[in-house]
Amino acid sequence: VVLTQQRYPVTRLPFSVVSSEDLAAFERILPGGVVTDPEVLEASNVDWLRTVRGCSKVLLRPRTSQEVARILRYCHEKNLAVNPQGGNTGMVGGSVPVFDEIILSTTLMNRVISFNSVSGTLVCQAGCVLEELSRYVEERGFVMPLDLGAKGSCHIGGNVATNAGGLRFLRYGSLHGTVLGLEVVLADGTVLDCLTSLRKDNTGYDLKQLFIGSEGTLGVITAVSIQCPPKPRAVNVAFLGCPGFAEVLQTFSSGKELLGEILSAYEFMDAECMWLVTHHLRLASPVQESPFYVLVETSGSRAGHDSEKLSDFLEQALSSGLVTDGTVATDQTRLKALWALRERISEALSRDGYVYKYDLSLPTERLYDLVSDLRARLGSQAKHVVGYGHLGDGNLHLNVTSEAFSPSLLADLEPYVYEWTARQRGSVSAEHGLGFKKRGVLSYSKPPEALRLMQQLKALLDPKGILNPYKTLPAQA
Amino acid sequence: VVLTQQRYPVTRLPFSVVSSEDLAAFERILPGGVVTDPEVLEASNVDWLRTVRGCSKVLLRPRTSQEVARILRYCHEKNLAVNPQGGNTGMVGGSVPVFDEIILSTTLMNRVISFNSVSGTLVCQAGCVLEELSRYVEERGFVMPLDLGAKGSCHIGGNVATNAGGLRFLRYGSLHGTVLGLEVVLADGTVLDCLTSLRKDNTGYDLKQLFIGSEGTLGVITAVSIQCPPKPRAVNVAFLGCPGFAEVLQTFSSGKELLGEILSAYEFMDAECMWLVTHHLRLASPVQESPFYVLVETSGSRAGHDSEKLSDFLEQALSSGLVTDGTVATDQTRLKALWALRERISEALSRDGYVYKYDLSLPTERLYDLVSDLRARLGSQAKHVVGYGHLGDGNLHLNVTSEAFSPSLLADLEPYVYEWTARQRGSVSAEHGLGFKKRGVLSYSKPPEALRLMQQLKALLDPKGILNPYKTLPAQA
Repeated sequence: VVLTQQRYPVTRLPFSVVSSEDLAAFERILPGGVVTDPEVLEASNVDWLRTVRGCSKVLLRPRTSQEVARILRYCHEKNLAVNPQGGNTGMVGGSVPVFDEIILSTTLMNRVISFNSVSGTLVCQAGCVLEELSRYVEERGFVMPLDLGAKGSCHIGGNVATNAGGLRFLRYGSLHGTVLGLEVVLADGTVLDCLTSLRKDNTGYDLKQLFIGSEGTLGVITAVSIQCPPKPRAVNVAFLGCPGFAEVLQTFSSGKELLGEILSAYEFMDAECMWLVTHHLRLASPVQESPFYVLVETSGSRAGHDSEKLSDFLEQALSSGLVTDGTVATDQTRLKALWALRERISEALSRDGYVYKYDLSLPTERLYDLVSDLRARLGSQAKHVVGYGHLGDGNLHLNVTSEAFSPSLLADLEPYVYEWTARQRGSVSAEHGLGFKKRGVLSYSKPPEALRLMQQLKALLDPKGILNPYKTLPAQA
Repeated sequence: VVLTQQRYPVTRLPFSVVSSEDLAAFERILPGGVVTDPEVLEASNVDWLRTVRGCSKVLLRPRTSQEVARILRYCHEKNLAVNPQGGNTGMVGGSVPVFDEIILSTTLMNRVISFNSVSGTLVCQAGCVLEELSRYVEERGFVMPLDLGAKGSCHIGGNVATNAGGLRFLRYGSLHGTVLGLEVVLADGTVLDCLTSLRKDNTGYDLKQLFIGSEGTLGVITAVSIQCPPKPRAVNVAFLGCPGFAEVLQTFSSGKELLGEILSAYEFMDAECMWLVTHHLRLASPVQESPFYVLVETSGSRAGHDSEKLSDFLEQALSSGLVTDGTVATDQTRLKALWALRERISEALSRDGYVYKYDLSLPTERLYDLVSDLRARLGSQAKHVVGYGHLGDGNLHLNVTSEAFSPSLLADLEPYVYEWTARQRGSVSAEHGLGFKKRGVLSYSKPPEALRLMQQLKALLDPKGILNPYKTLPAQA
């Protein structure tokens, strides 16, 4: 992987360089928690998509918030830049250093602090892996309010820092609503304890909101308090084929009406996505070939009621021609197999060649027009132009593949995709964040007044700019 | 009503005094929208609880965000203090001036800007009355995600500015999750347009969150974009008598289990609340006398399924002795009558004498202990010590009445109630906010580091402090 500083036009800011004196100081703060082994560092310097690469010489693994506080106090004083890192599963190069920033990993901060089995409130350290938390709360009759493909590696602290969306957003909403409290260490080492477990608290400004989605640029999240909903007693998944995108939308309306409060996911993918997962991953399509496919999930408290609602919905969808073929799963194994068709598209894409990734919010009725537009625009330059995503949330994952990275293809994609999105008042990053790779496109979705206020907030909370530099906000002119 | 500046130890900050030159300037910005008639001003100077009173000499009624921007730009330049005012239904004196602040009313900003009848996204000006918005969206098959007793007067802008909780919080969650976008005018007149209608947008910091719950001290909300859930096709209300508070809690657990996703409200009130509404308001209790009462609401998409769930729940609650008597309503009239028993407690209290009001978040298992504690502590000093509220959210409304205001009773209540709450890591203002009357108690629920950051945010966004002064944050030392 090419070094980020070689591929991208970016200049190192005048931070200090880590000295042996600094390493000795870190060793005093974190005995045994200072890693300088180049082989270990390699994995933390490169993002999982293998598109960006830093050259950090040191990785720190604190176990407590107090250790994080002491590290940041030291770095702040010495003007050392810090790259907070969770599971390193981000899509936009936000979780790895750009130059030689110190990597501050939450890997060893993986303790559950408390769980209230009546209210479902989980309090845990930031480095807990999402899938492990899921297992923990499911054993106790609850579920995590978020789920995403990267669950096996991503950390809850990183999820909150990036305001992760994912597969349960339609049902349980945004982390801005489900996160009850945070503990955050500020750039100067101050520990900000907003780790409440209360559902309601209107005493002053809701400070935790500032850090949700700030991608580690305003503070380091060290602990999270989150509201877990009760585990649904019945889960059904229907996988359906639709003859056109208009039918995908109408099926969604019908699902909202007939499934009501038990509708928990409405995902879509086009025929090219199905081609990719069947060819590259050897998955089998469970339904007849169709231009579009949708995955409908219901989650409810009473199996009999849920299946009645679901069969009424399916009957109407089939008899009205909105859906041409379909299958339903209720047991865990088949349910996971159907979800895999949708969840593994990203993996199939990466086997297809170089991938240009876009994560957009658009008005649902225009959502697929961009895919069709681009397919015509790019012609044979692209191997595949595919659209899939969280239709229920208006969130399109638009991906284009080519044999190898091509500057001319890129020039046909950008700024075209961003301008198209901006004309619809859409978002150029629905759930992936901006990180390093998208920080230049913020202004397609936000006015100059908003950008100015973001820069003022950054200056207030991190006046030396040591926290995750070169990320989220555009480079200052 | 005694002037606030006479009853409370508060000193006017060195803002300018409105001059006739200023009035002429306002008249140029808002032809016909400048009110100086003392009779009209009277209603805007006094809060609806009739406990605080300002002496503002001018009320401004803009119709557009641009007018608000021009007013604030002028006031900022001239160092004139401004009190933003919506429906003036707040509980903590946040919506009226303390001294002679200019009252900036959203009354004429009452236009619906757009409604998407597929997605349920409503965009409207800040001065729309909540009940009118409810009617508007219900005619189109949706409901507002919040509802509260003051709906007939409160403005959506004020709801958002105070992060109002209310009766649907259990089901639809906080405004931090349901508000999609805001337009805000900053202290210097800058219009911050974050009025998106997208469900997901991770382009930079989520600035709108700063203003939700900031009580008009960081900016003036001029327009709101909010996600409305589909209107439930079936609504049921059960009103039940419980033999003790332990049974109130167990009935809640049972309701969560058996009603699942259709449980939309779980409210409780004690026997003294029932006494107040039956005696002062002549309402009739629909069930036998009990130490506690609960109101359980279900909202769902299918009447048959919902009533099956509800009857199973009721059967279990009655047969296990958790509930000793109960009644169920499905038609609008009876449903409203049952809700009135709970919603009108506040009104009944105000007829009982002077009311000391507390709005606390507490761990549910300890929630009623404070009421019992206080009843013993106050003895015959108090007429009534009552507890009611949103049990499902851990939110207790604790109210004490006496014949007239009594400093010695107050001294027995405060700081006792706040210290008790702080020991449980509760919130001393769950949903009412701090406004003028509670701004001194913030530190019972927030650490000094949080208070400092709030003050820094205030200084950043409103360096001259002209927006709603003397509110939310404690007076600077």
